[in-house]
Amino acid sequence: MPRPITLFTGQWADLPLEEVARLAAGWGYDGLELACWGDHLDPWQAAEDDAYVQAKLDLLEKYNLQVFAISNHLKGQAVCDDPIDHRHQAIVGERVWGDGDAEGVRQRAAEEMKNTARLAAKLGVDTVIGFTGSAIWKYVAMFPPVGQDVIDAGYADFADRWNPILDVFDECGVRFAHEVHPSEIAYDYWTTVRTLEAIGHREAFGLNWDPSHMVWQQVDPVAFLYDFRDRIYHVDCKDTRMRIGNGRNGRLGSHLAWADGRRGWDFVSTGHGDVPWEDCFRMLNQIGYTGPISVEWEDAGMDRLIGAEEAIGFVRRLAVDAPDAAFDAAFSS
Amino acid sequence: MPRPITLFTGQWADLPLEEVARLAAGWGYDGLELACWGDHLDPWQAAEDDAYVQAKLDLLEKYNLQVFAISNHLKGQAVCDDPIDHRHQAIVGERVWGDGDAEGVRQRAAEEMKNTARLAAKLGVDTVIGFTGSAIWKYVAMFPPVGQDVIDAGYADFADRWNPILDVFDECGVRFAHEVHPSEIAYDYWTTVRTLEAIGHREAFGLNWDPSHMVWQQVDPVAFLYDFRDRIYHVDCKDTRMRIGNGRNGRLGSHLAWADGRRGWDFVSTGHGDVPWEDCFRMLNQIGYTGPISVEWEDAGMDRLIGAEEAIGFVRRLAVDAPDAAFDAAFSS
Amino acid sequence: MPRPITLFTGQWADLPLEEVARLAAGWGYDGLELACWGDHLDPWQAAEDDAYVQAKLDLLEKYNLQVFAISNHLKGQAVCDDPIDHRHQAIVGERVWGDGDAEGVRQRAAEEMKNTARLAAKLGVDTVIGFTGSAIWKYVAMFPPVGQDVIDAGYADFADRWNPILDVFDECGVRFAHEVHPSEIAYDYWTTVRTLEAIGHREAFGLNWDPSHMVWQQVDPVAFLYDFRDRIYHVDCKDTRMRIGNGRNGRLGSHLAWADGRRGWDFVSTGHGDVPWEDCFRMLNQIGYTGPISVEWEDAGMDRLIGAEEAIGFVRRLAVDAPDAAFDAAFSS
Amino acid sequence: MPRPITLFTGQWADLPLEEVARLAAGWGYDGLELACWGDHLDPWQAAEDDAYVQAKLDLLEKYNLQVFAISNHLKGQAVCDDPIDHRHQAIVGERVWGDGDAEGVRQRAAEEMKNTARLAAKLGVDTVIGFTGSAIWKYVAMFPPVGQDVIDAGYADFADRWNPILDVFDECGVRFAHEVHPSEIAYDYWTTVRTLEAIGHREAFGLNWDPSHMVWQQVDPVAFLYDFRDRIYHVDCKDTRMRIGNGRNGRLGSHLAWADGRRGWDFVSTGHGDVPWEDCFRMLNQIGYTGPISVEWEDAGMDRLIGAEEAIGFVRRLAVDAPDAAFDAAFSS
Amino acid sequence: MPRPITLFTGQWADLPLEEVARLAAGWGYDGLELACWGDHLDPWQAAEDDAYVQAKLDLLEKYNLQVFAISNHLKGQAVCDDPIDHRHQAIVGERVWGDGDAEGVRQRAAEEMKNTARLAAKLGVDTVIGFTGSAIWKYVAMFPPVGQDVIDAGYADFADRWNPILDVFDECGVRFAHEVHPSEIAYDYWTTVRTLEAIGHREAFGLNWDPSHMVWQQVDPVAFLYDFRDRIYHVDCKDTRMRIGNGRNGRLGSHLAWADGRRGWDFVSTGHGDVPWEDCFRMLNQIGYTGPISVEWEDAGMDRLIGAEEAIGFVRRLAVDAPDAAFDAAFSS
Amino acid sequence: MPRPITLFTGQWADLPLEEVARLAAGWGYDGLELACWGDHLDPWQAAEDDAYVQAKLDLLEKYNLQVFAISNHLKGQAVCDDPIDHRHQAIVGERVWGDGDAEGVRQRAAEEMKNTARLAAKLGVDTVIGFTGSAIWKYVAMFPPVGQDVIDAGYADFADRWNPILDVFDECGVRFAHEVHPSEIAYDYWTTVRTLEAIGHREAFGLNWDPSHMVWQQVDPVAFLYDFRDRIYHVDCKDTRMRIGNGRNGRLGSHLAWADGRRGWDFVSTGHGDVPWEDCFRMLNQIGYTGPISVEWEDAGMDRLIGAEEAIGFVRRLAVDAPDAAFDAAFSS
Repeated sequence: MPRPITLFTGQWADLPLEEVARLAAGWGYDGLELACWGDHLDPWQAAEDDAYVQAKLDLLEKYNLQVFAISNHLKGQAVCDDPIDHRHQAIVGERVWGDGDAEGVRQRAAEEMKNTARLAAKLGVDTVIGFTGSAIWKYVAMFPPVGQDVIDAGYADFADRWNPILDVFDECGVRFAHEVHPSEIAYDYWTTVRTLEAIGHREAFGLNWDPSHMVWQQVDPVAFLYDFRDRIYHVDCKDTRMRIGNGRNGRLGSHLAWADGRRGWDFVSTGHGDVPWEDCFRMLNQIGYTGPISVEWEDAGMDRLIGAEEAIGFVRRLAVDAPDAAFDAAFSS
Repeated sequence: MPRPITLFTGQWADLPLEEVARLAAGWGYDGLELACWGDHLDPWQAAEDDAYVQAKLDLLEKYNLQVFAISNHLKGQAVCDDPIDHRHQAIVGERVWGDGDAEGVRQRAAEEMKNTARLAAKLGVDTVIGFTGSAIWKYVAMFPPVGQDVIDAGYADFADRWNPILDVFDECGVRFAHEVHPSEIAYDYWTTVRTLEAIGHREAFGLNWDPSHMVWQQVDPVAFLYDFRDRIYHVDCKDTRMRIGNGRNGRLGSHLAWADGRRGWDFVSTGHGDVPWEDCFRMLNQIGYTGPISVEWEDAGMDRLIGAEEAIGFVRRLAVDAPDAAFDAAFSS
Repeated sequence: MPRPITLFTGQWADLPLEEVARLAAGWGYDGLELACWGDHLDPWQAAEDDAYVQAKLDLLEKYNLQVFAISNHLKGQAVCDDPIDHRHQAIVGERVWGDGDAEGVRQRAAEEMKNTARLAAKLGVDTVIGFTGSAIWKYVAMFPPVGQDVIDAGYADFADRWNPILDVFDECGVRFAHEVHPSEIAYDYWTTVRTLEAIGHREAFGLNWDPSHMVWQQVDPVAFLYDFRDRIYHVDCKDTRMRIGNGRNGRLGSHLAWADGRRGWDFVSTGHGDVPWEDCFRMLNQIGYTGPISVEWEDAGMDRLIGAEEAIGFVRRLAVDAPDAAFDAAFSS
Repeated sequence: MPRPITLFTGQWADLPLEEVARLAAGWGYDGLELACWGDHLDPWQAAEDDAYVQAKLDLLEKYNLQVFAISNHLKGQAVCDDPIDHRHQAIVGERVWGDGDAEGVRQRAAEEMKNTARLAAKLGVDTVIGFTGSAIWKYVAMFPPVGQDVIDAGYADFADRWNPILDVFDECGVRFAHEVHPSEIAYDYWTTVRTLEAIGHREAFGLNWDPSHMVWQQVDPVAFLYDFRDRIYHVDCKDTRMRIGNGRNGRLGSHLAWADGRRGWDFVSTGHGDVPWEDCFRMLNQIGYTGPISVEWEDAGMDRLIGAEEAIGFVRRLAVDAPDAAFDAAFSS
Repeated sequence: MPRPITLFTGQWADLPLEEVARLAAGWGYDGLELACWGDHLDPWQAAEDDAYVQAKLDLLEKYNLQVFAISNHLKGQAVCDDPIDHRHQAIVGERVWGDGDAEGVRQRAAEEMKNTARLAAKLGVDTVIGFTGSAIWKYVAMFPPVGQDVIDAGYADFADRWNPILDVFDECGVRFAHEVHPSEIAYDYWTTVRTLEAIGHREAFGLNWDPSHMVWQQVDPVAFLYDFRDRIYHVDCKDTRMRIGNGRNGRLGSHLAWADGRRGWDFVSTGHGDVPWEDCFRMLNQIGYTGPISVEWEDAGMDRLIGAEEAIGFVRRLAVDAPDAAFDAAFSS
Repeated sequence: MPRPITLFTGQWADLPLEEVARLAAGWGYDGLELACWGDHLDPWQAAEDDAYVQAKLDLLEKYNLQVFAISNHLKGQAVCDDPIDHRHQAIVGERVWGDGDAEGVRQRAAEEMKNTARLAAKLGVDTVIGFTGSAIWKYVAMFPPVGQDVIDAGYADFADRWNPILDVFDECGVRFAHEVHPSEIAYDYWTTVRTLEAIGHREAFGLNWDPSHMVWQQVDPVAFLYDFRDRIYHVDCKDTRMRIGNGRNGRLGSHLAWADGRRGWDFVSTGHGDVPWEDCFRMLNQIGYTGPISVEWEDAGMDRLIGAEEAIGFVRRLAVDAPDAAFDAAFSS
């Protein structure tokens, strides 16, 4: 069977889930990576209402779509973040935000992540994708000076906050797949190494491989797959296009909006950027990844109704199965 | 006269100023870029005690050292920063930190910057170097999503807080030279463009050009000199060595300590890195910069007593004066 | 409405205009960028015969083709050129060549450019594309030595010759779009800066952006669009493929014919070369360029009947409209 | 007539020739480059049985396939190789292997190459493709030290062994096209120069240009075509994808199997790699190569039934005929 | 104490050891890495004659030179090599060559390596540097096809032959430092990984890091140091200069002699090539390597009497000690 | 004997020759490459006055300076140039300029070149360096279109004008060394190939290799030496520093003055640019060039009195003699 290709619904949460399902099915997607925001999925409601979960499954079945993983980046972000501010208020929902007290937000976000694991289990899904947040991301510039003790404390804070959540994941038979991403505890290669150490390499914590955050940091996404091959729990396809090289556009984006051509890099529709997709898909075959490839469609310079359909064609064409036999076998047959 | 070369005392503030003066003079430096911390310079004390300033001048004269500019990065940082935290407490001094209330710290830092202008005038110096801090640097990752209104507000906050300070600079006939640097309101090319717009291109606000922060962002430091040629008020020489290219070391440094070879880049002694120094020095001649070149010595992998002496030799050799006549004049003579 | 795509008829002037119109319409082009040579357009005839202009419009209408701009590179070339020689004789037509006296040729070429503006107005078109010629291009090698006074005089000569032409453009409500190109007064970034200064940045004089001349000079065509965003009056799509890198093929072409693989670069059908088209089209959206994209088809190694059809497909696929909303709006909806 | 595109049957010799013919015809190939192994072609049988050759021609005709060249890499390899070992036993067939005595194997391999020339003549084909083997390839690392006398002797051994074979080629009016390839006497640019010298530049000995072996050695395949333009007797299309650049994958392949993503390079289906195909096809036009382009399909990471069909589409699209007239002719028409 | 710098005597074995000692001491070297050939060191003689060893130590003392490691590349090479041929005869000495029977040579070479460990112990040295040889290096081109079983057998052969040798090393308290090098069982990154696995990561087997063999294979020597940090037992400084990039010089050297400018790379005097020495020396500090840096001087285009003196100056200047404190400590002092 | 290093006096012709001799001798130069302008050398005077030549030789002897070659770029330039204009008037001298009639200038320039050969012979020198001029350089942009017949005619014009000059060279036993350079008949690799063909590869016409004109055109100066090894008659050392890469500085120099940092490249003092000097000097050894290395000092951003002394140190250090024996000879001694 060819590898299933899904659409992540996070960037479509302004539309009702049924509309997204209808579109995705029409474009040929095999399934959806459901986001826990908008009306797509609500872990709190699911915890209280079994019919809610069944209704979602029925909706997917109506459009002949599968679900292999669900995502809750927005609430995961709040688990470790510091500061907690207006940016979080805009994305975590009222139930988590509550009175906005930072520590309360973090704890309610942690509760939602536990509920997300429970929801996954009810949906028959073994993977939850998301972000972790980070207490030390804000120190990325290293000035004013930051001691290594502060960095160490940040990794410890992450472990302290996520271990109890991962205990619930273990109870549910579900794995968490962290997306390596600036703003998070693991945002590049060496922070991923350190993060896995911090959590004792426990199996409940793995990675959602999204190469779009690697290419502009010049982390090789292919080698990343090989080195962390036992922790690649999910694959998201988003692309990044570099616009570095004119001496003025910088790696850090200059606080410019997406799609501004003065940014040193930008997210673009899969296949329009600099991710070496074919090498990546071939390496996924090599490491034995058998899960879905999920298109996370983000491109502020392109109409998503055109782009999402084009993207599945691109992925379908390149993410081919490996052959059964080596070519040079023919020489001695 | 060849261009004067000075040593920035900021990274030597653990030593008494006299010891730094003795060392610098011994290595052949023409002067010092005095830091407003350690026992090197205290703007509050200078405001209250005229003899204090004279004593500093006497000390410099004793070692036959000149002063062209003074620096107050650490307190400038606190003027706009948000959050204000333990990192600031470690560097702003008790007078500015006070009870640690964030807004109070910012206002006391602003007061110190005004005093720094006054101190410069008393020293007979027309340039103060420093940082601005920033209310929006922390949003550099653009996730959780940040609206352009928030970015706009950050630039406005900068203008609101610095315009009154710059009024004092104008009164004193002194200019502020901001060092373009991550953590600050202007950290790359396009943020510098925007920052100068925010402040209405007023003459009191210019730049301390330090290329070490540009090379790892892939901003061309030579073109930067040309484009901002009317705002280059001071030059700091610090170098950065790139260690990108093995697929694992990332541009963002991985929260690793200075001198860790897994960082994608590192500060190194001038001449040991990837700054195109010769092109820079030639461009300084072209734009008519006549001020000092100041060695800001930072290299966590090298002994500073060896490095600072080597650095002045490197700069002296490359920062040559321009000739009087063009070579092809000889063809028709 | 999607952006219109036109075909420049200059390289098809050996064919009757009606044949070109039939072909272009058949391939799906939305219009033609009409050349003022061959039988396509004659500014002198148009000046004398109103029916001539109407007949051209009728012909276009018959094939359902629009016209947004007309071109007169060949005669514009003669306005400033020095020397005027057999190369000009072959391209300017008898009316301009006359007795071949150089200054006379220049002045008659200037007259034709004025007539071209008048013709544009009659056609209901607000843009004339072309070349300027240059009295100093021939000094590009800087040897035998050339003083800056000679260079200055060249820019002044350009202004003196073109200002009267541009006065007529202003009268007609038409703009001139100079194609930045070797042999011309503006052939790269800094000469464009200087040219616009020479002409006092008058609005009648803007640019026809054709990136094929930039990539082999290593001028970034995307940054060029941004920096001259208020002077981008028209867009021509021609591509250039680099063949540099074997240590023998040089940047200057070695006097070799087009399509010789030993040239360091060559013009090729749009999409077969090294122009970063997608970044360019996205930047055109950013700077608010709303005019046509015109395919200037040149490829000495490919059949034009195959290439011109392929090229419109390539451009149509990449030159997409910008979306209405940002993708991350969905996170907080 | 467009240039014919053939499929090399060497990597399909595990299938009966009729099955390969059926597949190739179905995908649109114009002909086959027949391999002298499997049941595809047997030079010994052809030498003894004229009906055998006719039956092959009939089979091709049945599927409307042409033959322009035949290949015998596997037996040519044994002519000069040293050592002769189990690797040769697996590929040379029983007739050549015999008792496995090395010198006997070499001489029987030479006999088969003579028969291959005779077979080509009977098939009406003027080109035989193959390998030469090499007595000195094994010294490629230059350690333990190897004197230039040993290298010289290797080239002489090649000439001594191949000149008698080429005499038969001359008698038959057939040319040998050596594929430049590691393991062979000529494996890169300078060894090709030296090999042609060794054989006195005799016309019977030319080259099968296969760029896949050049790109990972960083030999420019386009310049190679130009420099050896009078010896390009055949063209094989195989592609190579580089995976160098993460600091760990090496140029020499690390003894890893094909399709292992840790190899520094890998053979891939034509169009999936780093060969600059379009420049190559254009140069083939320039040097007047009029023979077939033959797809040698090798990709251990892709199903050959998908790949071989895709490959002919890729080649057909890019390997276009040159035009009749230059584009700039239109300017003066 | 600054890190000791030694000279490897292998390329000076045509001179009497005393002459080499006199030269090295004169140039300022701190010691010698003694080669087990020429008259420098003879493990067989040392095994039989205790006075022999003392005489060598006396000679070193006379010139105030230390010894930290001894080398026996030439005989180690023969332990696993296949074929054994005239190249080995020229370098292994009569005692090992004997009657030239391949298996006999291999076993006598193994005996010499055991004696070399014993000699090291007598000299008070804990490291023996050398090569391993390889039964599978000759298959590096992967054609004629080589199955993975053959590769596996090659690593097993290595382990079978070297484990008994390493047992003697363990008995003597001496470690073997294999130089990663083409022709050997470990010649790049991934073969080093596999080799260490084959030998069960036993402590007696480590690495002599010589970056000159890595740069032309595009293996990052800095990352190599970090990844194998617990197995870096010795450091040899040899440099390699790349001459790739003109489309004709290839990575494999074209069987051309050293110093021929058509080779794609060449060994050159330390500091004249493309090894990133400063990054390497800094990483040696980071991983805590405290041993000597040994100059292995090889440059076929330079006089060694000039080069060896220049090289120690280069190394001394760059291989500096790390500082005691971080520079940003000064900000809060 | 180490290779002699000379100073080209062309850029010092505003000074009396004796002053140049004094300076050069003081800096350690072994000789002078005398320019035929200023008061350094006058071929017309030499033709008429034997004492003139002896006086020059006496002057050189006084400063212990040798002469290996003389130069007459400025008059050679006028032999083929078209147009002849004010630029030539400024450099060819009154004798050649005369009434300024173009054809007359060309012929008188040709006469001076013949006299230059005669002068060389009188000085005991076998090489005259210079330029050829070109009738077709001005067509480098290929627009307005230029037919290949015009290009062909340009090469023929060169041959027609230079063959009679070269006849005189042959009579005198002197060779002409053309400096490959924009503005000349041969300005890059392929034009050099064509130029040598045009002149029938006659021995009297060879090359003055000056890599500064190659690097910015991306012609490999090392491969150039190898390919034209039988025509390298002289070596000039001038360096070029690239400033390409910021998207705005172009390859063609933008009509900007030397030393303007916006030029894409600039001439700089030897050792300050991008010429791979060490590879070049090693290749000079390989091809058996035994003549002088002559420093042509040009750097509009540096004082020549500092630069010329620094340059000889740079060249002396790198242009070393080749060794007598290969390093790996020691392994088997």
